[in-house]
Amino acid sequence: MKKLDAFFAECTKIVDRELDALIPSGQTEPANLHQAIRWSVFAGGKRLRPALVFAVGQTFGAAKKDLGRAAAAIEMIHAYSLIHDDLPAMDDDDLRRGRATCHKKFDEATAILAGDALQTLAFQTIAEDANLSAETRVRLVSEIAQAAGTPSGMVAGQQLDFEAEGIKISIENLERIHQNKTGAMISVAARAGAIIAEADETEIATISKYAANLGLLFQITDDLLDATQTTEVLGKTAGKDARAEKATYVSLYGLIEARRLAENTYLAAGEELKKIKLETFLLDEIADFILRRKK
Amino acid sequence: MKKLDAFFAECTKIVDRELDALIPSGQTEPANLHQAIRWSVFAGGKRLRPALVFAVGQTFGAAKKDLGRAAAAIEMIHAYSLIHDDLPAMDDDDLRRGRATCHKKFDEATAILAGDALQTLAFQTIAEDANLSAETRVRLVSEIAQAAGTPSGMVAGQQLDFEAEGIKISIENLERIHQNKTGAMISVAARAGAIIAEADETEIATISKYAANLGLLFQITDDLLDATQTTEVLGKTAGKDARAEKATYVSLYGLIEARRLAENTYLAAGEELKKIKLETFLLDEIADFILRRKK
Repeated sequence: MKKLDAFFAECTKIVDRELDALIPSGQTEPANLHQAIRWSVFAGGKRLRPALVFAVGQTFGAAKKDLGRAAAAIEMIHAYSLIHDDLPAMDDDDLRRGRATCHKKFDEATAILAGDALQTLAFQTIAEDANLSAETRVRLVSEIAQAAGTPSGMVAGQQLDFEAEGIKISIENLERIHQNKTGAMISVAARAGAIIAEADETEIATISKYAANLGLLFQITDDLLDATQTTEVLGKTAGKDARAEKATYVSLYGLIEARRLAENTYLAAGEELKKIKLETFLLDEIADFILRRKK
Repeated sequence: MKKLDAFFAECTKIVDRELDALIPSGQTEPANLHQAIRWSVFAGGKRLRPALVFAVGQTFGAAKKDLGRAAAAIEMIHAYSLIHDDLPAMDDDDLRRGRATCHKKFDEATAILAGDALQTLAFQTIAEDANLSAETRVRLVSEIAQAAGTPSGMVAGQQLDFEAEGIKISIENLERIHQNKTGAMISVAARAGAIIAEADETEIATISKYAANLGLLFQITDDLLDATQTTEVLGKTAGKDARAEKATYVSLYGLIEARRLAENTYLAAGEELKKIKLETFLLDEIADFILRRKK
């Protein structure tokens, strides 16, 4: 675990440096807009998706310097989605990562535009990444857009998620929602690492299956934490799901079954890693980290 | 003018066919999201930006089939910006192109996500455009993102615009706002046509100056129409600028001077076209069309 902590710390350092260089300063006009973007991007997030880009990329032999910008771009998409997800018309949340959400700290119009600009900057970052060939860049833009958009990416998942509030839905629908809402972007983070490292298509497919399990594991543990932890520990409003009558792994399976499902999903991720003829210690540790996370 | 009408009609036909093929159907889940996107995209807009892609592209010898997807992508960015601009936290508008705005017809959350998904799909469309080389695609993603984002693109302009409401601003600031808010995307539409046609960098620079004048002309005539036309004719709420105490070319210059400025800007666009050693009749006609538009 010590090794993983150091790895996460190093990834965060690299990706934060990239983000700081890519996002206009808080003094650049329009200053409010750039301060709002920075408020949300530099809020002490886990940087899980960037860490996945680095972990998979390095596993397949990519240099760190070739992974940093794609990792930053994927984190920008994640940050934009949180800003918009917290808006009054969406989840209407005041707290994120232990502090005021973007529209609370600034205002709603600025938060909408900050999210919009972050999405734009994400694709610009990939397109202008001089470390990668043009072919790699267009593949990354295409894959990240598919994972972020609709009909089978993050935005589709958010739509399905809020439409399902207060409605009894099936396990299949719950899985579809989460596969789109969080799974697709976690998956593309892992795939991006493999693509940049020029892994072969079989390896990329295996990494996708590993990452699909990781995404599912992330969602189950998210539901478990929302049901069992306090707002103070999470740094975001706890118990939200039950109040919104949201279908979750906890509401559909109960706590004990949901924990068992998490364990099994962790094991399934590990099974995929065995197919890769390289040192996958780091990737296994990341799955273990998600299984055991406390916030 | 007959020739220009036919040209606009043909551009609209091609780009609408592309948009219809690229945007998931209204039956595809999440159906509300895709219906909301289609509601806003197929609302009978002028398709001015796509027409510019075609007009400049064809002027420099590009085939129509190589221009359609980039034109569709630029229209998606435009459509997303209108959806978000109409939101209650932004311009709070109920009417767009003669019918209910997206959040009025659907709901606010769906409108936010429809805009988000359209932006994503725009970049995906460019990245996956098999008619263009990977190098051309990354250049287009980069240029369109710069024009759509911040600190010198559309989103920056929107932020500056709403921050300037009710405040006395200088002519220089007004021009900066509009150059960012509408000029940058009009400019990149023209540049995209030239880039796809593989015009040389001097020609692309000339086209940019032509397009900068076109963008300015568009904004001045927009302000004139808002001040002088009825809601029925415009298909969107008229007289908004005065009520919001917005700085406009009309409020800063008065009607007569604003009209003269429009004429001069039209002439300046024509001066740029004279530098191009090709038949530029169509590009001149487009400038003339913007000068004389009645809505």
